[in-house]
This record gives sequence, C-alpha cells and structure tokens, in this order.
Amino acid sequence: MISFFSRKRKIVLDTSVFINPDVRKYFGKSPENAIEEFTRLAKKNKKFDFYMPPSVLKELLNFIDEKKIPSDFYSILRIKSPNKHRIVCPSIFFYDLVEEIRTRVNKGLRVAENAVKSVSQKGIDETIKDVRKKYREALREGIIDSKEDVDLIFLSFELKGTLVTGDQGLIIWADKLGVEWILPDKFRDFLLYK
Amino acid sequence: MISFFSRKRKIVLDTSVFINPDVRKYFGKSPENAIEEFTRLAKKNKKFDFYMPPSVLKELLNFIDEKKIPSDFYSILRIKSPNKHRIVCPSIFFYDLVEEIRTRVNKGLRVAENAVKSVSQKGIDETIKDVRKKYREALREGIIDSKEDVDLIFLSFELKGTLVTGDQGLIIWADKLGVEWILPDKFRDFLLYK
Repeated sequence: MISFFSRKRKIVLDTSVFINPDVRKYFGKSPENAIEEFTRLAKKNKKFDFYMPPSVLKELLNFIDEKKIPSDFYSILRIKSPNKHRIVCPSIFFYDLVEEIRTRVNKGLRVAENAVKSVSQKGIDETIKDVRKKYREALREGIIDSKEDVDLIFLSFELKGTLVTGDQGLIIWADKLGVEWILPDKFRDFLLYK
Repeated sequence: MISFFSRKRKIVLDTSVFINPDVRKYFGKSPENAIEEFTRLAKKNKKFDFYMPPSVLKELLNFIDEKKIPSDFYSILRIKSPNKHRIVCPSIFFYDLVEEIRTRVNKGLRVAENAVKSVSQKGIDETIKDVRKKYREALREGIIDSKEDVDLIFLSFELKGTLVTGDQGLIIWADKLGVEWILPDKFRDFLLYK
C-alpha cells in the first residue's frame, strides 16, 4: 500500500537543544556549532522527521547568527504550528494551569512584600535586582508561560511526536497530555542509534 | 415521545448574584435576603433548571449564615461539577490564557519594582498595603484565576447552559467558548418574564 503520509517518527525540537549549555554541549561549543553538528547527524539519519514551531525558530534565531546556519538545516527542519483551532485538550489541563498560576501569583506577592521590607538594608538598586530574580523564579520557572511553550506542547500532541527539550516545565505538561519525550542529553546518541 | 432528560433551559449561577452588591440589590439588602427572594421567584418559575458547581456553593457559604438559607434553596439548586476529564476545549483557549497571564505577570513585576522605589516616601506598612492592592488588580481582575471560575465556565459549556455572573473576567472567557450569558442586573426580570 502506498501512503502519502510520512511514517517516520516525528521529533519536535525546542531551542534548548541548541541553546541550553547543558544540552548543547553534546553537539558543540556554541549554538552555531550545535546546529551544524545536528544538521550533519540528521542528514545521515533517515528514520526521523524533525519539526519546530515557527515561534520557536524565531526564538532560536535571536540567539544565533543566521548567516552561520547551514542551508541544509532548513531542508531538514519542518516548520509547522499546531492547528490550534482544531486541536482540543481535556479541560482538566486548564484546571491544572489555573491552579498552578494561582499558587505562583501568591508567591510573587510574597516576593514583592519581602522586597519592600528589605529595601532599608539592601538599598533600592540591589533590591530591584533581587526582586526581579526571585519574582522570575517564583512565577516563571517550571511552568508553561509563553506561546512558544504552548506551541511545542500542542505540536507534539498533534503530531503524536516526541518532544526534545531541556525545560522541566515543558516535560511536566507533556506528561499531562501523554506526549512522548526523550532526555535531551541522550539526543545525540539517539540520532546515532542504528 | 417521553424524554428522561429535562428540556428546561439551564441557568448556571455564580456567587456574585447573591454577594456582589451591584447585582444582589435587585434581590435583597443582604446576601441572605437575596437568596430568600431568589428562592421565592425560582419556585414559581417552571422554565429553568438552576445549577451551581459545588466549589462555588462552598464559596457562597463563606459569605452567608447557612442557617438562614431556606431549605427550598437546596431543592431548587442542582449541585454539579463539570465532567472535567471528559470535557475538551480548543487549544486556542489555552494560548489565550497563557498570553494573558504573561502580560499580567510582567505588570506584577512593575508593581513590585515601583513599590521598592516608593518605600522611602510611604514607609513599609503603607507600601505593603498599596502593593497588595495594585498587585491584585494587575494579576487577578478580569481573568479566570480560580478553580471556581473554571468550574463555572466548563459547567456552563457542558450543559449548554446560560451563565449568570457579575464577573467581567468570566464573561470574557464565556464568550471565547460560545457560552451564553445574561446580564446579572436583568436576572430578576428574566425570572419574572412570562
């Protein structure tokens, strides 16, 4: 039977594969090196289709000198957004997000209150630096908080793909929807596996 | 044909009908009066089924002396959660929430930063009072931010019901899912309409 659909396993890539130093180091010293090495390995590999949402590609290009990206990279990488009007998710997913955010919003207020109390010791500039860091930790880390995150989750879900990311927040949400994922520090070996 | 399912129009009630002074005033001077008057009007009315999620009922009981609630109220009001594992929503709904929260989280940080800068003029106690108020406004108002809110939206969606709420944030999200609603200040007339 001839099929017009690719039967290859679909791999959805986050920027962290190329940007996050802990993950990237398996591919190269710089983001540009990592992309080059990934492109080399991916070209040899005929088992997978590689996907990236356009929002994530745009984010990646903020970190990388576009001229240094091999043109093969764009031939290998399939650029696709999830069909966000068509894809549905159970409403329980929504409860989890609202609950998570509520907890974090309360933490954020505690950060602000503590900052107000500590200004007299630390001074304004130091306190603002401190509040930014702590606030970000309280409200951002380990949570899906951007269009890019949601694109990665729902694209993986739509494609029944495998997500490669170093972001723990994304992993938690991938698990809620039964999205498959692989450890990013094993991704190089995964590409080489025969 | 005999149907075992009620064909009545389903009305989903938020606490604001009984608690929010702007809405409640059409029913009575106090929340207890409002519940009494609602019960009286609802008993006469045979066109509607009235629903409330248990989480919202629990919230209501925080504001009201339970002994003053007429027992008919519980005979009229159907207590039901949405089937949150079964009900699905389009993922675009999720994008909207994440985008909304991102904007608000950034606003919350600005509130914290401004508070740090104003401590020296206002003093710690006044600044903390101020930061709590502004932070709440920035992060909470006009957004669905609680289990109760999500219950109201998805119960209305599941039942194809009509939501009665004075909460603008809920109205915005009801509209996203095509959930019907009526103006709460018209709710009394709506009950009396022949």
